[in-house]
Parts: sequence; structure tokens; C-alpha cells
Amino acid sequence: MLDLMQDEVLTAFSTYALIVILKMMFMAPLTIFYRFRKGSFATEEDVAYKSAEERKKLLRTHPDVERVRRCHLNDLENVVPFVLVGLFYVVSEPQLPAALLHFRIFAASRIFHTISYIGAFPQPCRGLSFLAGFAATVSMAYNVLSKVFTL
Amino acid sequence: MLDLMQDEVLTAFSTYALIVILKMMFMAPLTIFYRFRKGSFATEEDVAYKSAEERKKLLRTHPDVERVRRCHLNDLENVVPFVLVGLFYVVSEPQLPAALLHFRIFAASRIFHTISYIGAFPQPCRGLSFLAGFAATVSMAYNVLSKVFTL
Amino acid sequence: MLDLMQDEVLTAFSTYALIVILKMMFMAPLTIFYRFRKGSFATEEDVAYKSAEERKKLLRTHPDVERVRRCHLNDLENVVPFVLVGLFYVVSEPQLPAALLHFRIFAASRIFHTISYIGAFPQPCRGLSFLAGFAATVSMAYNVLSKVFTL
Repeated sequence: MLDLMQDEVLTAFSTYALIVILKMMFMAPLTIFYRFRKGSFATEEDVAYKSAEERKKLLRTHPDVERVRRCHLNDLENVVPFVLVGLFYVVSEPQLPAALLHFRIFAASRIFHTISYIGAFPQPCRGLSFLAGFAATVSMAYNVLSKVFTL
Repeated sequence: MLDLMQDEVLTAFSTYALIVILKMMFMAPLTIFYRFRKGSFATEEDVAYKSAEERKKLLRTHPDVERVRRCHLNDLENVVPFVLVGLFYVVSEPQLPAALLHFRIFAASRIFHTISYIGAFPQPCRGLSFLAGFAATVSMAYNVLSKVFTL
Repeated sequence: MLDLMQDEVLTAFSTYALIVILKMMFMAPLTIFYRFRKGSFATEEDVAYKSAEERKKLLRTHPDVERVRRCHLNDLENVVPFVLVGLFYVVSEPQLPAALLHFRIFAASRIFHTISYIGAFPQPCRGLSFLAGFAATVSMAYNVLSKVFTL
């Protein structure tokens, strides 16, 4: 199966896909960090060691924690489709330069999306970075479908 | 790697998987559309260009926006497992007619699920369409596991 | 394509991946069960057969239902990256014992995570089980990336 790794497009895809997956996974420790820093928890047993009064104060939502959670969910909604569509795209044997262009635009757009979201950059920073990643995934899906229908 | 594309089951799977993934991705622009139409935003910088008074009014949840978001999350919870299970299913070399049956039931059920959810169709429209897609995915997983355990 | 099934690492991965995907999918019926048991619904048409007064009472959130939903979302955030990273990991031809160790730690950690979450076990039960699964996925990603960069 190691032969597959010789394939340049697959190797490039593995790298970029893993980068965006790891970036998405990083949102989990970031959420935990914000939960502790802002004192905002969702689950009772997380604050069980506190006094009854403090517990009530800690079991609330905080805008900054919700912001990180929305960013995480947005990653799930975009990174997962990218990786799934990308698998079919790699199998459809695209040209390496075209493939690299798609992977790089997507990876860059998601990294910039996270920075804009967490840093609360003024719009349209977040909007445009979302759009660029979205367009890259749709373009890959279109490429696969157009190849499938002309087989 | 293009040899893989000769495989009829894989080609069919690519098509149906991409259709449901694109349908799932379409929920993102639909959410944005509803956010603007209903005037319901979650993030401060999205309403920064408004006056302080209007801003307060726009930073609230709206039932129709939350409905689209729940539909999107439900897609993530069902479409992603379908595609992942489907990859193993295709590798396990199912018969083409059985595979097509699974893929078509799933794709049809998810499209009908979205229409029932967004259109607020009376139950059990949404419930049954969720169930059909769920059953198709479980059936594919069962097929793979039963083949793995009899190797 | 059935040749692929001969590969022991892929067979093991299929089994463990399907187990955790099915476990994740099981959260959907569990949510429905809790929604009925606790009388907590999110969508109007789900309570349309009730009187206007009862309807209002049923359209609210309940901590136990929200707990199951958070557990489901946590699964999406962890199980999906595991399966996606695992696909690249399998292609990178790891040693079978090392691969089995990763798959088993992940599967065990996610099952224990769900039990701790739904059963509201005192911390750090949930925290540590999350961490073990997270570490297994990161370790697989690291293995793939280190192989890609030394090709």
C-alpha cells in the first residue's frame, strides 16, 4: 500500500488535510483554556470542587467561550467536507499544480478564518476567508463530478 | 490510481457522497441568508456597521435561524458517518445493486429530511426521513463488519 | 479491491473505526429518548399534537438533554478526526502492533468518555478519557507527517 504514498497528489493532500484537521482539533484545548480563563462551564461535575455559590456563577455561558465553540463548529462544517471531497478528488487524478492550488487556498483560508474569528477582526475578514475555503471545496467536488459524468 | 474509478461501486458512491456533502455544505449559505433576512446574528463584528441600538436588537437568536442550524448539525451527525462508513463499505466489495439501494435511500432520505426540517412539515416526515438514512448507514456498517469477521 | 481487505492494519482499522462511528451514531436515538423522557423539545412540529399550554412547557431545554447533545458534539469533534487521520495512517503502512495500540486506546477512551459524560462521573474521568483519545489521534497524525517529510 506504500505505493500509494509515491503519488505526489496524495502526499500533498495528506499533508494539507492533516494540517487543517490538527488545526480543527486544536480548538478543543482552546475551548478548555477559555472556559477556565473566563470561568464559564457547561457541565456540573466540572465545578463540583467549588462552593455552591461559586458553582452557580461558573455555570453560565460567556461570549468569548461561545465564540471559540462557534469557530470549532464552523471548522467541523468546512474542514470535514474538504477532507471527504478531497479523498474523491485525489482518486480522480487531478493535475498536481491544480490540486496544490486547491489545497493551499483551503488551508490558508481556514487558518486565516480562525485568526479572524478568535481575534474578532472586523468583517469581511472572516466572511471572505470562509468563502475562499468554501469555494475551494466546491471546485474540487465539481471537478470530481464532471469526471464521473464523462467516464 | 484512475483504475479505481473503473470500479462501478466506487463511482456510484463518489456521486451520491458528493451530492449529500454538497447538500450539507449548502446549509452554510442558507444560514447566512436566514441571519440577514431575520436580523439575527451571533457575532459582534457582523453588526459593527450598525448603530448601538440596532446592534443590540440584531444580536439575538431567532427560531428560524436556529432551525437551519439544527438541520445543519443533524446533517453533520448523519452525512459524515454515511461517507466514512461508505468508504469501508466500498472497499468490502458489495454487489452493485445492493450498494446503489443503500446510496439512493440515504441520499433521498437526507434531501427529504432537509425539506421537512426547513419547511417545518408535520411529523413524522422529518422523523421517518432521519430514520431511513440512519438505517441505511447502519446496514452498510453491519455489512462491512460481518465481512470482516468472516475473513 | 478486496485485496485491500487482506491488509491486516486496514481490517483492524475498519473494525475499530466502525465501532466508534456506530457509538457516535447511537447518540442520536439517545437524544430522542431523553427528549421524550424529560419532555424537552426544540422544534415546534414535534409537539404539534399537544394542547397550546402543554406545548409551551415542552419547548424548553433540559440539562440532561443538553448533556447528551454536548456528548454527541464532542464525539463529532473527536471521532471524525480519528477516522480521517486513520485513513492516512493506514496508507502510511504502520506496524500492526503500534496501529492496534492506537486504535484500541482511542476506541476504549471514547466509550469510557461517553459513559462518564452521560453518567455524570466526577472529574477527571471525562477529562482524562477525552485526553487519551485526543493523544492517540495526534500521535497517528504525527506518524504520518514524519513519514511524509522523510520520503
